[in-house]
Amino acid sequence: MPRYFVRLSYKGTAYSGWQIQDNAVTVQGKVNETLSVLAGTEVSTTGCGRTDTGVHATRFYAHFDLPGPIGDLSRFLYSANAILPEDIVFREIFRVEDTAHARFDASKRTYEYRISTTKNPFLKDLSYQSFAVHDIERMNSACNLMIGTHDFSCFARTHSGSSNPVCTVYEAYWRAQGDILIFTISANRFLRNMVRAVVGTMLEIGSGKQSADSIPELIRKGERSEAGASAPASGLYLCEVVYPFITNPGKGSFFDI
Amino acid sequence: MPRYFVRLSYKGTAYSGWQIQDNAVTVQGKVNETLSVLAGTEVSTTGCGRTDTGVHATRFYAHFDLPGPIGDLSRFLYSANAILPEDIVFREIFRVEDTAHARFDASKRTYEYRISTTKNPFLKDLSYQSFAVHDIERMNSACNLMIGTHDFSCFARTHSGSSNPVCTVYEAYWRAQGDILIFTISANRFLRNMVRAVVGTMLEIGSGKQSADSIPELIRKGERSEAGASAPASGLYLCEVVYPFITNPGKGSFFDI
Repeated sequence: MPRYFVRLSYKGTAYSGWQIQDNAVTVQGKVNETLSVLAGTEVSTTGCGRTDTGVHATRFYAHFDLPGPIGDLSRFLYSANAILPEDIVFREIFRVEDTAHARFDASKRTYEYRISTTKNPFLKDLSYQSFAVHDIERMNSACNLMIGTHDFSCFARTHSGSSNPVCTVYEAYWRAQGDILIFTISANRFLRNMVRAVVGTMLEIGSGKQSADSIPELIRKGERSEAGASAPASGLYLCEVVYPFITNPGKGSFFDI
Repeated sequence: MPRYFVRLSYKGTAYSGWQIQDNAVTVQGKVNETLSVLAGTEVSTTGCGRTDTGVHATRFYAHFDLPGPIGDLSRFLYSANAILPEDIVFREIFRVEDTAHARFDASKRTYEYRISTTKNPFLKDLSYQSFAVHDIERMNSACNLMIGTHDFSCFARTHSGSSNPVCTVYEAYWRAQGDILIFTISANRFLRNMVRAVVGTMLEIGSGKQSADSIPELIRKGERSEAGASAPASGLYLCEVVYPFITNPGKGSFFDI
């Protein structure tokens, strides 16, 4: 059956994450429903990964197979967006090789974490509001110690059942954009809850509770309890997924999605 | 009693407007509650105007009187923000003359209306999503015909009970910022529902349903039914209020509030 990729973005506030579940409203549930209505037959999707409850995506990919012809793709896209709720949008649908896989073929993923350092009523669900001290220089020193291939068990949800705790972090850095602090992290893969645990640890480093040098020790010990608490979901965005067969994928953002 | 001004901003989505009402959650209700807790006595406020259900304010002023000393103002501000809900924030509190009035002394008010021209899950409550044709040049021609002192009954809620329908519009224009269209309108005063009716009419002009030249005729006839439908509340922001005794007030925005 012909396979398609859909590139989408969503505000995660109202959803129990991406992954379809019984008795919970999920992004994948809404996406499958929409595709099934348009195809006139049950369609299921495979996402590039999972996002947890309340986590957003400015750029997310999923693949699906359709038995019959899809017709004009831009018309299909338009119809899908008319059916989808306001907080989920399809940006693009395109044909791929029948063996292309949204999860296994992704070679790099990038997350952003947004912290509002002042109380901002408009960014309530779209950031984590933190008024503590954030020493960006210290936080960026700690970032440098995370780059590379490591066993990141110290930042993984305990008992997450993940068999392979080794990831390669390509880049990790903080920057300030007005009153917003943005953390960017790219890796070949992420463990469950990893970015939020990294951010929580960085916040402890930024406020002086932990030393920036503690990162190698944390990684060596592999104890989740020694790293910082998970930062809230509201600040987290999946914003880039790279595939060898998609050129110039770009990063998604609030306004340029 | 000593009088104070508070400058605040709020996301209006969850509120039945500014004005306090029985059996409804309003911004003024939350503000009065907060001030009363901090003052240890019942405090009531007078706002610079009203905003309707779902309308936002990046810059809103209210005055209130306190019987006793308020103590350190920055500490008071900090405590107030800890009590207020996440979607309301006090930006500044300052002492004014005992006769200063948040409503009657305002000499100019500015509203912005934000239209997202693409489906954007993150701007759902913060804009009006409209995918129609928006010919900005035509809309700006229509804007120019609104400038000046006119009887604006054609844009007023019918039976709103307002006795004086004459307003002086100082400026009105549309601009594009990426996929967002922003309408700015300043006047000495506004009639109820006026900005949303103006925007609805502008949208009809932008899509070619009405001629840009129809504005003078609409104003002359004064019939609400001949102007366009009201644009939704989600796109509207009160963003500037000018008082003779506040210098350099500035405009509020999403990020610089």
